[in-house]
Amino acid sequence: MTDVEDAAVVLFSGGQDSTTCLFWAKKQFETVYALSFVYGQKHVHEVELAKGIAARAGVEFHVMDVSFISQLGRNSLTDTSLLMDEEKPADSFPNTFVPGRNLFFLSIAAVFARERGVRDIVTGVSQTDYSGYPDCRDSFIKSLNVTLNLAMDEQFILHTPLMWINKAQTWALADELGVLDVVRNETLTCYNGVPADGCGHCPACKLRGQGLDEYLKTKK
Amino acid sequence: MTDVEDAAVVLFSGGQDSTTCLFWAKKQFETVYALSFVYGQKHVHEVELAKGIAARAGVEFHVMDVSFISQLGRNSLTDTSLLMDEEKPADSFPNTFVPGRNLFFLSIAAVFARERGVRDIVTGVSQTDYSGYPDCRDSFIKSLNVTLNLAMDEQFILHTPLMWINKAQTWALADELGVLDVVRNETLTCYNGVPADGCGHCPACKLRGQGLDEYLKTKK
Repeated sequence: MTDVEDAAVVLFSGGQDSTTCLFWAKKQFETVYALSFVYGQKHVHEVELAKGIAARAGVEFHVMDVSFISQLGRNSLTDTSLLMDEEKPADSFPNTFVPGRNLFFLSIAAVFARERGVRDIVTGVSQTDYSGYPDCRDSFIKSLNVTLNLAMDEQFILHTPLMWINKAQTWALADELGVLDVVRNETLTCYNGVPADGCGHCPACKLRGQGLDEYLKTKK
Repeated sequence: MTDVEDAAVVLFSGGQDSTTCLFWAKKQFETVYALSFVYGQKHVHEVELAKGIAARAGVEFHVMDVSFISQLGRNSLTDTSLLMDEEKPADSFPNTFVPGRNLFFLSIAAVFARERGVRDIVTGVSQTDYSGYPDCRDSFIKSLNVTLNLAMDEQFILHTPLMWINKAQTWALADELGVLDVVRNETLTCYNGVPADGCGHCPACKLRGQGLDEYLKTKK
């Protein structure tokens, strides 16, 4: 492959975490590609929001249709007949878990990157606040990095700037990057599809809101 | 997950290798699911052939549409404007390499298996005759096995009965399983889409034909 120096592909959903990562990548790399996915999620307008943020950030935006994912397993993010778990069940994953999602997203990002001679890939997963999803853990990401290298005889580098920080620290990072307002007002994190500060009661809103409160307190 | 004892998912294209694996799995497991993929390959009628073989073998047959794969990278198996490499180039992969193909197939098989409480997955990849494709090597398969386990907190077992045998030995295995004629006459291995003994001159036909000749000689 022809190496493109200083280019990276960012997995970009238009939520708090991946938007923070997008601006983090813009500081680290000259060229950034934002990659979004349509996988049968109920709140597909998140892709439109993502497109707008990418345009404002001045990065190339691509959407991949991976709707096969929602046909593989039942989960409450793609199946409207399932009531979403508001809390993680004691003995299993929350039903918001889409099996294999990050595996597919990162694998696609790697092939996409390889075609463009890019080896750096950025994702906003975090083990600190991982909500019980096994595919957000550091061991999974590192294992996948090795697997991707072996699959294509390449040297990919998976970057996870949020892996070991909590939501308050993620807000601090956005602030440091000068995009606290953009992240607060233009992103969609809410499982019920409400942008910015969201519905306030779904697990994603609670995590995001508590982190923001915590960070804003330290700023005073 | 609820364990289904003695069940396995077989990656099944209807070619020599995966058909041999299908019958191998039928000996090892009570229930076998055959999983085929449509990914924009030129010879999509291989799926129809696969369906017929699965029906005769009495196993459940499923097809997954993963056509996004052909949009990700250029290769001569999905792009009709590219002339197929008949030999492996000295310094790169043959252009029949579909980047990420086995990565996607096996990842999908894992989610498919998990939904059914199955942990055993069978694939016909072989390092012995691997034609320069990195995703047929043993190290890739083992790394992916770990990655899949970490992605979903499961214990998958990826079986590769053909990993360390050559094409002649694969024919011997088919014979031992009592399906030499089925594999010879009903499968499609040829890159030019000709079933059974094929076109005779593409790399896949050469490999298959030489293996058969070699095996038949030892039988005399």
